[in-house]
Amino acid sequence: MYLPDFAVEQWMNQYENDAKYNLTDTCATALSFNELMDMAADHMKNVVLDYGAITGDEKLKQEILALYQTGSIENITTCHGCLEANQMVMDVLLEPGDHVLAFTPGYQQFYDYPRSLGCSVDTIALDESRGWCCEVSDVTSLIQPHTKMIILNNPNNPTGTYFSMDWIQSLIAACKEKDIYILCDEVYRDFNQDYAISDLYEKGISTGSLSKVFAVAGLRFGWIKANQDIIDRINLRRDYTIISTGPMIDALAYTVLQNKEMLLERNHKQVQANKEIVTKWLESDDRFELVMPQKGTVGFLKYNVDIPSEELARTLLKETGVFFVPGACFGCEYHLRLGFGQSSAQMKMGLSLLSQWMQARQSCE
Amino acid sequence: MYLPDFAVEQWMNQYENDAKYNLTDTCATALSFNELMDMAADHMKNVVLDYGAITGDEKLKQEILALYQTGSIENITTCHGCLEANQMVMDVLLEPGDHVLAFTPGYQQFYDYPRSLGCSVDTIALDESRGWCCEVSDVTSLIQPHTKMIILNNPNNPTGTYFSMDWIQSLIAACKEKDIYILCDEVYRDFNQDYAISDLYEKGISTGSLSKVFAVAGLRFGWIKANQDIIDRINLRRDYTIISTGPMIDALAYTVLQNKEMLLERNHKQVQANKEIVTKWLESDDRFELVMPQKGTVGFLKYNVDIPSEELARTLLKETGVFFVPGACFGCEYHLRLGFGQSSAQMKMGLSLLSQWMQARQSCE
Repeated sequence: MYLPDFAVEQWMNQYENDAKYNLTDTCATALSFNELMDMAADHMKNVVLDYGAITGDEKLKQEILALYQTGSIENITTCHGCLEANQMVMDVLLEPGDHVLAFTPGYQQFYDYPRSLGCSVDTIALDESRGWCCEVSDVTSLIQPHTKMIILNNPNNPTGTYFSMDWIQSLIAACKEKDIYILCDEVYRDFNQDYAISDLYEKGISTGSLSKVFAVAGLRFGWIKANQDIIDRINLRRDYTIISTGPMIDALAYTVLQNKEMLLERNHKQVQANKEIVTKWLESDDRFELVMPQKGTVGFLKYNVDIPSEELARTLLKETGVFFVPGACFGCEYHLRLGFGQSSAQMKMGLSLLSQWMQARQSCE
Repeated sequence: MYLPDFAVEQWMNQYENDAKYNLTDTCATALSFNELMDMAADHMKNVVLDYGAITGDEKLKQEILALYQTGSIENITTCHGCLEANQMVMDVLLEPGDHVLAFTPGYQQFYDYPRSLGCSVDTIALDESRGWCCEVSDVTSLIQPHTKMIILNNPNNPTGTYFSMDWIQSLIAACKEKDIYILCDEVYRDFNQDYAISDLYEKGISTGSLSKVFAVAGLRFGWIKANQDIIDRINLRRDYTIISTGPMIDALAYTVLQNKEMLLERNHKQVQANKEIVTKWLESDDRFELVMPQKGTVGFLKYNVDIPSEELARTLLKETGVFFVPGACFGCEYHLRLGFGQSSAQMKMGLSLLSQWMQARQSCE
C-alpha cells in the first residue's frame, strides 16, 4: 500500500535533535519517568506483564469515559497513540472507492492514509483571512453519493482552528442526512472545556491520546470513543494488529488520568504564558502575523519575507538552534508551525533569536 | 478492509479469564512490573516521556542485533509486538493482486491479513504424520508468476514445527530464483540456538518480540530485522501509524535483553520440565498423541475421542477450569493447543484433570 513520505514527521525526525530552541513542538513539556512513577507507585505493585485486558483495563476506560459527556466503557477502546487510533478507525470503516473529505493545511495522515486504502479524497482549504476556518457549505458542497467520512482535527494542527459548536452542528446535520462518519482527532482538545464529536453525533468518532496536553507522548497511549458497532469492529481487528496496550501502560495511563486536573492546569498555564509572550513579540516585529489560536497548543505563524519556508527553517536551525516545522510540510508556504507547550524561557529566547536572524538576513540582502 | 474474526484470539479473549489451569498459553510465565523494575532501575533514571528515538533507541537496537549473526542496526526497526511487526511488513510489501503462500494449521494473521489487503493466498497443509512438516516441493509447486511472499512461523504455532536448516535452504533457493520474500515470524525462536531467516536470505524478513520466551508480553515490544530497503520503507510508513515505541518501553526492552541469558535459561528449564511431564502423561493416557515439538513453547495435542474440539474445550473449562484453545480455531479438529510455558504444578494438575474428565465423560456414554 503506497504512502508518500509524511513531510512533517520526516522533518521532525531529521532535524529535531539539533534543536536548542524548539518552538514547533505540539506537546506540553514531557514528564520524566520518575515523575510519573512518583504518582503511579501504588497502582504498579500488582502489575504482571502479560497481555492484560485486551481492549483496555476497565478502570482506565472509566477514566477515559470521564473525559466525555455520554456513553459507557463499551464505547471506548485503547491503542498506541492517537495516530494509531485514527488508523484503526480508517482501517475498519473505509473501503477502496469510498470518498473522504479532509482539510488543508492539516495533518497528512487524514488525506494520504485514506488514499493508500484506495479511497478518493478531496480537501477543503482553511482560509487564513477567515481565521483559518471555512464555511460549512465549502464542505457540504463537496459531498458525493459515495462520501463515507469527513476527517477533522479539532483544534487543528497546524492552524489552531477550533470549529465552533454552531459550525460543527451544521456539519453534523448535513452528515446525518447523508449517513457520513465524522472522524475527529481531538488530541489537542481541552478536556475541561471543548466538546467532543462522539458526544454530539452517533456517527461521530473521537480519538485522543496522552501525548499532547497530558505531556506523556512517551507512553504511546491513545483511545477511540465511538458507537458500539464501530468499537466492536475495531476490537475484532486489533487481534490482527496490536492485541492489547498491555497492563503496564494501562496502569500508567490510569495514573495520568487520575492526575488530569493537575496536568491540564500545568499545560494551560504554560500555553497562556507563551501566548502572552508571542502576542508581545508580534507587536515588536511586523514581519510576522499570527491568527492566535483560541484553543490547543499550536498556531501557524506567517512571515512576510521572501524566503521559502524549508530554506528558512533549515538555515535558522543551523545558525541559531531555533527549530520550526516549515509550512511547506503542510503544503502552505511562508508559514512556520509554532508550538505553545515549551518553557517560556525557551519561547522568549527563540523568538528573539528569530527576529535577530531575520533582521541580519535582510540587512545582507 | 474486511477481516474475519481471529478465531484463536477471540477464544482467548472470551475464555482465558476463567482458566484455573491454563495449558494453552504460548508465553513463559510473565514477569511482574516490580521484577522488571528491579533489573531496570539504573536505565530508567534519565528517561523523559517524549517520543524518543523514532525508529528505536540505538543501544536497544544493538541488543536486538546481538540476537542475529549478520547486519547492522540499520537492519532493525521497532514496534509494538510481533503481530504489529508482521502487519508492518505486509503493509509495505504487499499490494492488491499479489499472491502469498502460508501454512496450516498456522497463525490466522498470515493468511487472512494478506487477503484483507486484496492478495490471493494459498495455504500448504502441514502433515501430522510427517511430524507436522511438508516437502519443500509442496510449497514450490504452488509458486505462481505473481507470488510475492511466503509467510512462515518458525517454530510454528500451534504445531511446534521447526523447519530444518536443509529444508529452509531449499526453500530459499527456490525463492531467490523467483525473487520472493520470506517473512518468518520468529517469536518462538530459541535465540541462542535457532537460525534466523534474515541471516540466511537477502529477502528474508525476521520478526520477533519479547512476548514469548522473554516473558514480558505486557511490554508489547517487537521488532523487524530485514534488508535496509525494507526497513527504510517501514520507517517511512510508521509516521502514519505508530511513530515510536517511546523511550520508556525502549529502556525496559533494553533491560530485558541485557538479562536475556537468565530469561532464556528460565524459559528453557520450564519448557524442558513440562515436556518431561507431558511425555510421562502421554504414556499413561492412550487417548492422546503428540508430535513433541523440538523447539518453541507450543505443540498440537491430538485426542482420539469423538468430541468436537470447541465443545471439548468449553465443557472442560467449565467443569474443571482446565483451559485449551481448540483445534477448530486453527481449522483442525480433534486437537488442542498445548503450551509449555506455565508452571509444572499447573501442568501436572491440568493434565491429570483432563484425563479424569475424559474418563468420566466416556463412562457416561
